[in-house]
Amino acid sequence: MELHGIGVGRGIAAGPLKRMPEPLAEPADVARTADAEVEIAVAREALAAVGAWLRERGIAAGGEAKDVLDAQALMAADPTLAKDIAARITAGTTAERAVFDAFASFQKLLEGMGGYMGERATDLADVAQRVIARLRGVAAPGVPESDQPFILVAHDLAPADTALLDFTKVLGLITRDGGPTSHTAILARSKSIPAIVGVVGADALVENTVIVLDAGTNTVIVDASDTEVADALQRREAWLTASNAPITDGALKDGYLVPLLANLGSATEAAEAIALGAEGVGLFRTEFLFLDALLAPTVAHQEEQYTALLEAFPGKKVVVRALDAGADKPLSFLNDAHEENPALGLRGLRALRVNEHILRDQLTALVNAQNKTTADLWVMAPMVSDAEESDYFVELARELGINVAGVMAEVPSLALMAEQVMVNSDFVSIGTNDLTQYTMAADRMLGTVASYQDPWHPAVLRLIKQLGVAGALLDCPVGVCGEAAADANLAIVLVGLGATSLSMTPAAFADVRAALLTVTLPEAQALAAKALTGRTAAESRVLGTA
Amino acid sequence: MELHGIGVGRGIAAGPLKRMPEPLAEPADVARTADAEVEIAVAREALAAVGAWLRERGIAAGGEAKDVLDAQALMAADPTLAKDIAARITAGTTAERAVFDAFASFQKLLEGMGGYMGERATDLADVAQRVIARLRGVAAPGVPESDQPFILVAHDLAPADTALLDFTKVLGLITRDGGPTSHTAILARSKSIPAIVGVVGADALVENTVIVLDAGTNTVIVDASDTEVADALQRREAWLTASNAPITDGALKDGYLVPLLANLGSATEAAEAIALGAEGVGLFRTEFLFLDALLAPTVAHQEEQYTALLEAFPGKKVVVRALDAGADKPLSFLNDAHEENPALGLRGLRALRVNEHILRDQLTALVNAQNKTTADLWVMAPMVSDAEESDYFVELARELGINVAGVMAEVPSLALMAEQVMVNSDFVSIGTNDLTQYTMAADRMLGTVASYQDPWHPAVLRLIKQLGVAGALLDCPVGVCGEAAADANLAIVLVGLGATSLSMTPAAFADVRAALLTVTLPEAQALAAKALTGRTAAESRVLGTA
Repeated sequence: MELHGIGVGRGIAAGPLKRMPEPLAEPADVARTADAEVEIAVAREALAAVGAWLRERGIAAGGEAKDVLDAQALMAADPTLAKDIAARITAGTTAERAVFDAFASFQKLLEGMGGYMGERATDLADVAQRVIARLRGVAAPGVPESDQPFILVAHDLAPADTALLDFTKVLGLITRDGGPTSHTAILARSKSIPAIVGVVGADALVENTVIVLDAGTNTVIVDASDTEVADALQRREAWLTASNAPITDGALKDGYLVPLLANLGSATEAAEAIALGAEGVGLFRTEFLFLDALLAPTVAHQEEQYTALLEAFPGKKVVVRALDAGADKPLSFLNDAHEENPALGLRGLRALRVNEHILRDQLTALVNAQNKTTADLWVMAPMVSDAEESDYFVELARELGINVAGVMAEVPSLALMAEQVMVNSDFVSIGTNDLTQYTMAADRMLGTVASYQDPWHPAVLRLIKQLGVAGALLDCPVGVCGEAAADANLAIVLVGLGATSLSMTPAAFADVRAALLTVTLPEAQALAAKALTGRTAAESRVLGTA
Repeated sequence: MELHGIGVGRGIAAGPLKRMPEPLAEPADVARTADAEVEIAVAREALAAVGAWLRERGIAAGGEAKDVLDAQALMAADPTLAKDIAARITAGTTAERAVFDAFASFQKLLEGMGGYMGERATDLADVAQRVIARLRGVAAPGVPESDQPFILVAHDLAPADTALLDFTKVLGLITRDGGPTSHTAILARSKSIPAIVGVVGADALVENTVIVLDAGTNTVIVDASDTEVADALQRREAWLTASNAPITDGALKDGYLVPLLANLGSATEAAEAIALGAEGVGLFRTEFLFLDALLAPTVAHQEEQYTALLEAFPGKKVVVRALDAGADKPLSFLNDAHEENPALGLRGLRALRVNEHILRDQLTALVNAQNKTTADLWVMAPMVSDAEESDYFVELARELGINVAGVMAEVPSLALMAEQVMVNSDFVSIGTNDLTQYTMAADRMLGTVASYQDPWHPAVLRLIKQLGVAGALLDCPVGVCGEAAADANLAIVLVGLGATSLSMTPAAFADVRAALLTVTLPEAQALAAKALTGRTAAESRVLGTA
């Protein structure tokens, strides 16, 4: 039997499965017998102990896992939750029940918000379980114990679980819930654990069944035969060898170069990116300079930051995105009015054009940094709709002294007008997250329409193809800097559609680098052509995967 | 000299211009000398008198003008405003100033909301002017008086102004503000007054200058020569003759049939539509049956309504849209969660699919009505993304007994996947309003991005062309039921792009019918091909207009 889901990377694993233990039984809703003050003190101690434990685990885990564990520690230390728990105890219930109810109520609130906040609800539930376990004096549900390596099956993984995984024992991960942007997916990718998320039928998998997990083909073979296991182990060996191959420039099997660039949010991330083989920066977000500021930062302050970034990449390409304010990142000095649908509001270049002094200041700071360093600075505008807007930005940037100016392709209209845009724009970079959101008319942060947020959808691929074709005709580089580029199989299809560089989180370099080396350009183009004929994202994923 | 704007319809006018009088001077912010109670009573009397006057005017004007005047009368009677005015008077100011400040504060609130509510701010300012004029004992600013017919120039027209226009004197309208969906545009269209809105440079026009207004070419000739005026009058004659031509089926000059269908919101509008020559219904919205309801209406109740509609169109095509809830029309029993971007949320078919019983009930009621009447019922689903969703709806509708089932093209992805959708779907109907909103990623209700909401944008036209081409290949009818079809010039381009029927407000029939008769199919196709090469909506409008 085969099950299907969304593979994370191209990892392969084979072995017996272990299920994640079920959560603790719900605390009984009984009247408190102990003194309220004592019970409140007990609850406080448990919250503090769990918070401390999470912080320690975070330090041990490091990296992205540390961030999520720290966030969980903050949840355990949340004063509103502590007050709510105390109030519930005072009102007559037990510490266990009060913790359960208070966390559940806050969790419901987060779930109602959907999207990113909704996904944090799982983290909160995990903290509640740990606090209740501590109050009961039992072990918190965690990853299963085993002497033999195993494949872990769960509804969804909480960050603490992922951080606790012993990679010598856990061969791979399968979850019933979660999508390509869930914690399980992000952490599995950063730790290079083979994983398939959103597997329909995962609940029915029986403990100790031998399974083969092939993330590259999005497939789980249940009750795998010895031959199937042997075949999988052989392919696993090849995958491991490829993943650990020496760092080389991104290229296809036939030597066709596809530079692998880094998505960065601040200059401090440059060193790690370079260590992992970044050939430059494909997306440098500049929002961090503007967030939490009452006024736009000065030219001098911006120049200093941009110079630090460019100095980290001497002689290399660095693509900086002009301020993308609005939507989920509103700035008080730029976005003032309430918007009913901020994702469709005055954001990106639209907001900069009506506040041109902010754009001019940013470009001036970038020009100064460009002229002081040897990096090859490219600057691009976000949320550009057509050639008229593209020309506005490109001409202003050139007038101020920027050497290479281009635009992002996020709004469907820009892709549809590609051949006009590319006459003047020096390059185009595809933001697959927003392009998918608008093409499918589905909020990428909203849980109820999360299934639409899949860059494998053939409609999105068709727009990317229009950009690729126009780029080839007009000799205009077409990069990809959305999540899509970090999906190793999709990376091949993107190159087949005409992408000339791929920018991603540096953690994905090894996997993507290895994947690109498995195909020639004609093979990538053939896979892309097949993917375009799919009817759904799932179909295109199957058709476009070798 | 020529000025340019957005023409409403294809009307032509020539004559001297009169400017709308400037608003009353702002009341001085001085201390009140009269007794507070007296001053409050005076303010109340003025509000009541203006309210009564607006209601009378509404009755005299009738139709859509009545609705807006009634809304203004309600503003004058608003108890919150009255309280605010009384409080300001009590605090020490005069009635005039209190009225001015209270209305200004409420107006600012509306403007901050943007979109539809923001456009209502003008209506509120107009009410305030009338109340202040009454308090001063002067005439309220209104349309200028003149013995000679004239062309009226204004910043924007308040509904009361439009209702007061003497059509034997006012030859045409030019406004500096407002877009294709402003009151001026909607009322001018319903009253067949030549109009151009959003004219850049309208402020500089000097009283009594002779101008030629050509809505069909979006052009204002300033200081027109005698030859230009004579030419305009001749073309005006031809336009009037065409507009008043006997009602015939919609067709191009070469006899190519383009059925003109009505957009209706309830069965009671059927009679007027038929009187104006509706060849059927191209969009029947069913939301009115569901709004304000705590539960979905019963099958029996829906059946009754649908039967009444179908009986009004014996033997004719009637396209009914399944419930389009969500976005700006949330329903308590269908859309429960808060959404950050409701336009990108769980709406249309997405919401129906997770509440399939509501869809099944609606389709069952429609089947029953279909089988009891002789109308040719077509049923379509809103907010459909691809062939998988389209097939889901079409197959469910057929299973329940619907004869003709199709989908709306509003989400860009549907247009991009047209050739797959049209294999099974019996027809496709393009909703240009939402298609434009998503293709341009700009909220169609938000003032700050209103300029993006123009279906002439070449990116939107390119998606429509993809639908038209696929429709011709697969023999699948492609209708248009958005605002775009009511724009006579755009109607020609839409047919050139492959639209096989046009659905609109019945008030636009005469203008569109006349426009279609001016071109052959190859000519419409040539105009469409030119429009596709524009860089902006404005350029495509010029390129696509004969």
